[in-house]
Amino acid sequence: MRAVDIIEKKKCGGKLNSEEIAFVVRGYVSGDIPDYQMSALLMAIWFNGMDAEETTKLTLEMRDSGDVIDLSQIPGVKVDKHSTGGVGDKTTLIVAPAAAACGVKVAKMSGRGLGHTGGTLDKLESIPGFRISLDREEFFDTVRRIGLSVIGQTGNVVPADKMIYALRDVTATVDSIPLIASSIMSKKLAAGSDAIVLDVKTGRGAFMKTEDDAVRLAEAMVDIGRRAGKRVTALITAMDGPLGRCVGNALEVEEAVAVLKGQGPADLTELSVALAAEMVRLFDGSSVEEAAARVREALSSGAALGKLCDMVKAQGGDSGSILKDGRLPSAKASFELKAKEGGFIESLDAEKVGRAAMLLGAGREKKGDPISLGAGIRLLKKTCDEVAPGETVAVLYADEADRFQEASMLLESAYEMAQAPVQEKPLIIGRV
Amino acid sequence: MRAVDIIEKKKCGGKLNSEEIAFVVRGYVSGDIPDYQMSALLMAIWFNGMDAEETTKLTLEMRDSGDVIDLSQIPGVKVDKHSTGGVGDKTTLIVAPAAAACGVKVAKMSGRGLGHTGGTLDKLESIPGFRISLDREEFFDTVRRIGLSVIGQTGNVVPADKMIYALRDVTATVDSIPLIASSIMSKKLAAGSDAIVLDVKTGRGAFMKTEDDAVRLAEAMVDIGRRAGKRVTALITAMDGPLGRCVGNALEVEEAVAVLKGQGPADLTELSVALAAEMVRLFDGSSVEEAAARVREALSSGAALGKLCDMVKAQGGDSGSILKDGRLPSAKASFELKAKEGGFIESLDAEKVGRAAMLLGAGREKKGDPISLGAGIRLLKKTCDEVAPGETVAVLYADEADRFQEASMLLESAYEMAQAPVQEKPLIIGRV
Repeated sequence: MRAVDIIEKKKCGGKLNSEEIAFVVRGYVSGDIPDYQMSALLMAIWFNGMDAEETTKLTLEMRDSGDVIDLSQIPGVKVDKHSTGGVGDKTTLIVAPAAAACGVKVAKMSGRGLGHTGGTLDKLESIPGFRISLDREEFFDTVRRIGLSVIGQTGNVVPADKMIYALRDVTATVDSIPLIASSIMSKKLAAGSDAIVLDVKTGRGAFMKTEDDAVRLAEAMVDIGRRAGKRVTALITAMDGPLGRCVGNALEVEEAVAVLKGQGPADLTELSVALAAEMVRLFDGSSVEEAAARVREALSSGAALGKLCDMVKAQGGDSGSILKDGRLPSAKASFELKAKEGGFIESLDAEKVGRAAMLLGAGREKKGDPISLGAGIRLLKKTCDEVAPGETVAVLYADEADRFQEASMLLESAYEMAQAPVQEKPLIIGRV
Repeated sequence: MRAVDIIEKKKCGGKLNSEEIAFVVRGYVSGDIPDYQMSALLMAIWFNGMDAEETTKLTLEMRDSGDVIDLSQIPGVKVDKHSTGGVGDKTTLIVAPAAAACGVKVAKMSGRGLGHTGGTLDKLESIPGFRISLDREEFFDTVRRIGLSVIGQTGNVVPADKMIYALRDVTATVDSIPLIASSIMSKKLAAGSDAIVLDVKTGRGAFMKTEDDAVRLAEAMVDIGRRAGKRVTALITAMDGPLGRCVGNALEVEEAVAVLKGQGPADLTELSVALAAEMVRLFDGSSVEEAAARVREALSSGAALGKLCDMVKAQGGDSGSILKDGRLPSAKASFELKAKEGGFIESLDAEKVGRAAMLLGAGREKKGDPISLGAGIRLLKKTCDEVAPGETVAVLYADEADRFQEASMLLESAYEMAQAPVQEKPLIIGRV
């Protein structure tokens, strides 16, 4: 078998078989197939796509390039959740404890933020003392004991994805649905849960700009998961504006706790309930309504908040810091962005809000950049809200006051105003 | 400027501008742009193509990556000729002296054979003493003095093409018309002639399998040449069966001399006259008929043969060896392939004939392999010929008798038989 013949086949619209896909992935990871052949193949895949069978085979080969976590030592149904990335998305901090309160086992590995999108690990690290690195036994034991644990990726998980993603990034082959689907699902399958809930974002703050593309990606991922023997569902959700009213690590923990107390913003609460309900459904097969009612009960009874506190304690964190005001990290300076004119907010560009938060120190441009846990944005006014001239629309937080000028100009440009009241758009668009 | 943005632009069907093309070619030659980005771009070009302006800019950038020969020290109009490669194509050995006999200056750099196609340099080296390496001054002086010289490539001509071609070869991006056209034309433009006649082959022995593709390639090359300020024409010619009746280096020299003596096969004579006439037309603007008449006169008067002898002598060769029988290298053994059944030859697969000749030692599988100058095939029967059962259809020549079995089986499979007489197809299909 020769790599050039496999490239030729895909270039001409052919379907790659298991042996060819195994040859390419294993050869690339071992170094036998050079970058330049892999990038030519990736570009041919960008143009000619891959069908469900090819995409599944690619995903399984990628999964098997490294460690596959065996969660069978944890009794019960383990359910994972993945979001394709958004701004202000702190749902994991709500959904994981809410599902755990309903009996789901959540053994989750999360990532860090990059660019305009945040990451759960950074948010968790804003809780004083919280450890995101547990060894395998400690991780399993926490899930067995309290029903959930969220940690950073450990071991050598899906090295093929790391290599292929790095190559895609510099060869303009990131935006391919089969390649995105196999990248995400290889990691989810390696993480070892029995079931996976996917939150596929669409809109201008999301990677998938159109609803059609989001549905295609969701279908591809659900298909892979089911072919791999997992229970999988996906929600298609809007990411035009940020989710909730807080963007930034400690600010988002605070807002997640507010939702768990029944005091959070409506959009964030709605999406969190829907995602946790999907996890419950995959766990015990209950109906959407039944599952949602149980999740709401777990929120209103305080059981979900209790699970979050249990996890914080189990991972060395100070649970008091999330329950009492003023104990999470806060930025040294703040700045109020005021409306120049009155009217209604027609839209708020999530990507610009995310970039503004990054400029304030809440996010990183590239891997390894330091971040400020207290930095971020509190959005007092969002899409559909009415604003009076001179009213404060957002408060910006940073450790250095010289970050405010650029960030506030960018944030200001994220707001688009209208003179008439604005109709609210649905947050949850569909289910696959 | 970033390579990834240029790849993205071409991937999305955009048109690359001069700066982008210069950035890519110069960056690739200097090593700043890695192979994996170049191969992704080549694959995007394979899918989305390049228009005439882009292809011309690419060609000129490639040309300028190395030495550009300045032929202005040679008075007169210098006309080059290029064939896209065939089996049994010894036209350069006929066309160059015929055109020179009509006043054209031919300062030509040729290549070696590879795979199933032959190369002019190998054929010339079968003439005892012939030197294909002349220094610049000797080369110029020979053309000034006798009107023609054919040598091997000297200096650092179009290094960008060498690098890009090597990458295309292993990434399934060879068969792209803009990439083929820019590869050929960058070398022709660097070779410095004022005008170029292209022979674009089509058919199953050719790289362009369909007439449409051959016309598109011819148009692309003619367009590039004219945009670069050169006079250019192209003939589209058939390469289903081999050209002439001899395949192999010394055998082809012998057959070329036969044409120059007016005793060669009809197809080879027809194409040689047509190509030489195109060269004469580019030189002095005469009509097709006028130019063809002058070429025929140069053949029948012996002037063209005289020019070939002059060149052989000027380059150290023994001109007696091409005029007298039995003085060119000959193989140690021969083998007669006989017809199993009678009938008419419906077709003769040029590629298989070329591969059989390679197996006999006349060609090389990869660069640098040694070849046997006397090895090859003499085709006694070709397409349209009638054959009696047991009649000899071809004689195979090799230095080792153990080469005959595999080669004769392959050659036998190249013949397709019919029971009714076969209609001859035109050799010259069109002009661009």
